[in-house]
Amino acid sequence: MKTMGLERLTLIEPRRFPDPESDALASGAVDLLGRARICATLDEALAGCVLAIGLSARPRELVGAVQPARAAAIEAMRHAASGEVALVFGTEMFGLTNEELARCQILAMIPANPEYSSLNLAAAVQVMCYELRLAAGSSEVPVAPQFPLASQDEIELLYRHAAHTLIGLRFLKPERPKRLLPRLRRLFARTRLEHEEVNILRGILASVDDLIERAKR
Amino acid sequence: MKTMGLERLTLIEPRRFPDPESDALASGAVDLLGRARICATLDEALAGCVLAIGLSARPRELVGAVQPARAAAIEAMRHAASGEVALVFGTEMFGLTNEELARCQILAMIPANPEYSSLNLAAAVQVMCYELRLAAGSSEVPVAPQFPLASQDEIELLYRHAAHTLIGLRFLKPERPKRLLPRLRRLFARTRLEHEEVNILRGILASVDDLIERAKR
Repeated sequence: MKTMGLERLTLIEPRRFPDPESDALASGAVDLLGRARICATLDEALAGCVLAIGLSARPRELVGAVQPARAAAIEAMRHAASGEVALVFGTEMFGLTNEELARCQILAMIPANPEYSSLNLAAAVQVMCYELRLAAGSSEVPVAPQFPLASQDEIELLYRHAAHTLIGLRFLKPERPKRLLPRLRRLFARTRLEHEEVNILRGILASVDDLIERAKR
Repeated sequence: MKTMGLERLTLIEPRRFPDPESDALASGAVDLLGRARICATLDEALAGCVLAIGLSARPRELVGAVQPARAAAIEAMRHAASGEVALVFGTEMFGLTNEELARCQILAMIPANPEYSSLNLAAAVQVMCYELRLAAGSSEVPVAPQFPLASQDEIELLYRHAAHTLIGLRFLKPERPKRLLPRLRRLFARTRLEHEEVNILRGILASVDDLIERAKR
């Protein structure tokens, strides 16, 4: 929950709480556990909510709407503008009962392998919290480090240098160039070469040039 | 992995394997663990892959592309058409080293709370496997049970019956109807009434009608 920016945890009749084992497992999120609200019943927990979304891997007889997790998260965000929205999870062993699910307006299901569809409780919570974060529009990740790109003329000088060196190596035969240079151009066109990378490549070419000169003596 | 339909697990230098504790935790997915491939190095594991996607919560200096999990999953599916794609996860404690990440073409990051961004290994694996399943187009969930819907004329008879009963109750005054009936219409228009539900509602109205008749005597 905390990794996805969620803060409000409600526990219904927890068997042990607070519990040193939970605290240990919560690691850096023990603050969230410390602020958890404890309720005696699901009705008490849901009082005041404008939407309750129940999670289950099993289809049920008497639910109104069934939605995949992603659509349910979008629906949750839409309702969050006008009030509290609850995601309701059952126990690890049994999930939600039909009676509990009847208190939810939406049954959300996480698309899964039909032959083995029951996620762990923690896994289901993680997926839903992740979808909520993305539905809330927080899909940003840091961008890759940016280095100054090479200019077109730097790149053309690189190609010219490469052609010169390849001829010196007798790898490129000016009378029968085949498609070597166009293929090199294509390779480097797919990556956007950086200024520093052009310098490195030209350094390599220069040291090959030196070798060619020394070999001539 | 198994809940999301993934089957091929590769472990690099596992400290203990096979391990009765892993088997117990794997529950119904112990078959997948039994078929796990064991490699001595990451290079050995990645040999033959056309794309390696490394997962990390930390931005790095020298990666080419950084993508959010969702985009990386789509990229993975695109490449899966032409060969093997690997998702590369580090250890629970330290994640991937820079050296390991340098073997990946894409650094995938799971959008997270910048103040507490490090998911458990299991949670990160779950999110990526889920995104792969959705990227593969398997977002179907069972539809809600369908019951026969009420026809328009059944619904009109219901409204007529309701108006009659509400007048009998003196709740609706024909000379000053206000907006009661339009509001009831609006309420029931938002839900698509089922045939059986109309019968239930009319049964309720009929028993109110009986009560009204008895009160008159």
